[in-house]
Amino acid sequence: MIGGRDVLKVLEAMTPLYVALGLGYGSVRWWHVFTLEQCEAINRLVVYFTIPFFTFDFTSHIDPFTMNYRVIAADAISKLLTVAVLAAWTWCSGSAKSSYSWAITTFSLSQLTNTLVVGAPLLDAMYGRWAQDIIVQLSVVQSIAWMALLLFALEMRKASGAAGFAPAGIEAGAGGQVVAPEPQQAMDVECNTDVAARPTLGSLMKTVWLKLALNPNIYASVLGVIWALIANRWHFEMPRIMEGSVLVMSKAGTGMSMFSMGLFMALQDKIVASGPKLSAFGMVLKFIVGPTATTICAVVVGLRGDFLRVAIIQAALPQSISSFIFAREYGLHPDVLSTAVIFGTLVSLPVLIAYYEVLGLLS
Amino acid sequence: MIGGRDVLKVLEAMTPLYVALGLGYGSVRWWHVFTLEQCEAINRLVVYFTIPFFTFDFTSHIDPFTMNYRVIAADAISKLLTVAVLAAWTWCSGSAKSSYSWAITTFSLSQLTNTLVVGAPLLDAMYGRWAQDIIVQLSVVQSIAWMALLLFALEMRKASGAAGFAPAGIEAGAGGQVVAPEPQQAMDVECNTDVAARPTLGSLMKTVWLKLALNPNIYASVLGVIWALIANRWHFEMPRIMEGSVLVMSKAGTGMSMFSMGLFMALQDKIVASGPKLSAFGMVLKFIVGPTATTICAVVVGLRGDFLRVAIIQAALPQSISSFIFAREYGLHPDVLSTAVIFGTLVSLPVLIAYYEVLGLLS
Repeated sequence: MIGGRDVLKVLEAMTPLYVALGLGYGSVRWWHVFTLEQCEAINRLVVYFTIPFFTFDFTSHIDPFTMNYRVIAADAISKLLTVAVLAAWTWCSGSAKSSYSWAITTFSLSQLTNTLVVGAPLLDAMYGRWAQDIIVQLSVVQSIAWMALLLFALEMRKASGAAGFAPAGIEAGAGGQVVAPEPQQAMDVECNTDVAARPTLGSLMKTVWLKLALNPNIYASVLGVIWALIANRWHFEMPRIMEGSVLVMSKAGTGMSMFSMGLFMALQDKIVASGPKLSAFGMVLKFIVGPTATTICAVVVGLRGDFLRVAIIQAALPQSISSFIFAREYGLHPDVLSTAVIFGTLVSLPVLIAYYEVLGLLS
Repeated sequence: MIGGRDVLKVLEAMTPLYVALGLGYGSVRWWHVFTLEQCEAINRLVVYFTIPFFTFDFTSHIDPFTMNYRVIAADAISKLLTVAVLAAWTWCSGSAKSSYSWAITTFSLSQLTNTLVVGAPLLDAMYGRWAQDIIVQLSVVQSIAWMALLLFALEMRKASGAAGFAPAGIEAGAGGQVVAPEPQQAMDVECNTDVAARPTLGSLMKTVWLKLALNPNIYASVLGVIWALIANRWHFEMPRIMEGSVLVMSKAGTGMSMFSMGLFMALQDKIVASGPKLSAFGMVLKFIVGPTATTICAVVVGLRGDFLRVAIIQAALPQSISSFIFAREYGLHPDVLSTAVIFGTLVSLPVLIAYYEVLGLLS
């Protein structure tokens, strides 16, 4: 049973995030401190400097040899299940082009969450430090494996002029083989002005790896995991000078990234950019479909008690900001993702507290 | 006697600051992440958001009823002595206009230090938390009393076209009366195109108060002191939601302000903007004259042992960034102050460690 004191603890952990977001919003809308280009500068500061250090700080402190593989498995199975369902749907659907695009967006909306900035303090306040450790472990898997898959799917869509490959293409990201496109789809590819020659799977992979290697958040994750592996294998701690140097930037992570999200909100004409129907679709995917899929998988792999609760709550976290950044870069439903980030982050607090209360009732 | 372990502790506390500074410098000079206008955005973020929260966070946690008034007195007497000597020098000097200007700059260089960003972690590492408390107390006095005096002197110089008032004017900031300018000086005022009518003391004070009230760092100090007074008088603590909301921004203070200083360094044509002679003059004022004056005053008021050491070290901290911002705003030797901030911050680490070692030898 979750009492008033437990909810207060969650509010104490989460309110500061919304204060930072409000300051960012107000700085543009009410106090006119920043111009449009200046907002872009703060976004760059966050993307290239504070968030990579923030991610590295969390990631480097995990112990890869005592990770909770059952929770990670539940999350992975839920995501694979979603990919399979979407692949089947795209396969059966008539218009392969738009189906494939919507499959990517649906996956993003239902499965990719804001693990570190929102998830880490939230789960720490709800269930304690062990729950935060789990969300950090999940964030590593998300940023290394699932973001890579998302990028691969997006690159594939771009390369084929959003025409070919469809369901087999999605799974090829994990598997390795690509089915040759149908003749009509191949023509689509030829007609597309963006694509001079059809790229090979090798060149696609190269592009994806390059994108991953240049994404500051992803390489911060990878470096963090490498550090964690070495440090836990040979039992040594990070020198204090290095620890302090990471901390001096990472401590700015939460405040600056929420502030930057506030700036982004202030620059939109309206909070709900994608219209009420699509927004409702996004919210249902985020807060109902995603957590439901994870709940089923978590029960199947045998999670019970607080581990089950943590697995469900983490699936209902607001939208991952990286997924929006990719959507904007590839021009794939950026307004839907932007709404999921903005509106989703705003409504997530009451939704997550409701989840917390309801899950607390189940013994 | 200061051993290698003590010096290592200081290096551990200070290196992260220089890492943040280096990242800021590199982001412009090496990686070309930010344009000139974008650097201005980050400067605004620091000045209007992170630093005020950072200052409020420190200031609101002092206990005004158990402040170390002896150290504050030593610091205040040293500053008053400097004002008196400079006033006398300006009085005796032939060219009142330039003397008055140089008197202001000399005061700035020898007495106004970077108390919180550099001073707080440094003194904590050297002597422990009580020393950090003292530097926070000194920072409150500096930002409320001495910055106000500096602003008053700068406004006076501007109002008189940098001609009149000179020594009496400086002291009027603390006292209240202004000596009428000599006829020749009054003519200077009339000739100056900037000043239509000679402002009264009342209008000058109004301008100064307005500037102070609009300076985010100063009002953060004042609000912090008000909070500290109320909280310590009636013995209550800051609610955790408020504490967290301040922290989410203040935690970015150290990293972001050093990063921003790095950006500023990168935008200069050369690190030593004011030429070697003036720079050496600034360094001598900062690292020798200022600490010497404070040492004399500290011994006179009876400080001994670690209290004396803290009083001396805090006087040798690098240049206050606010003093440079004012210098730029009023066009009074901004290149000299910029060099003192940049070059002074770079060389301060070895200088301060040398002071620490030498002071450790004295029993």
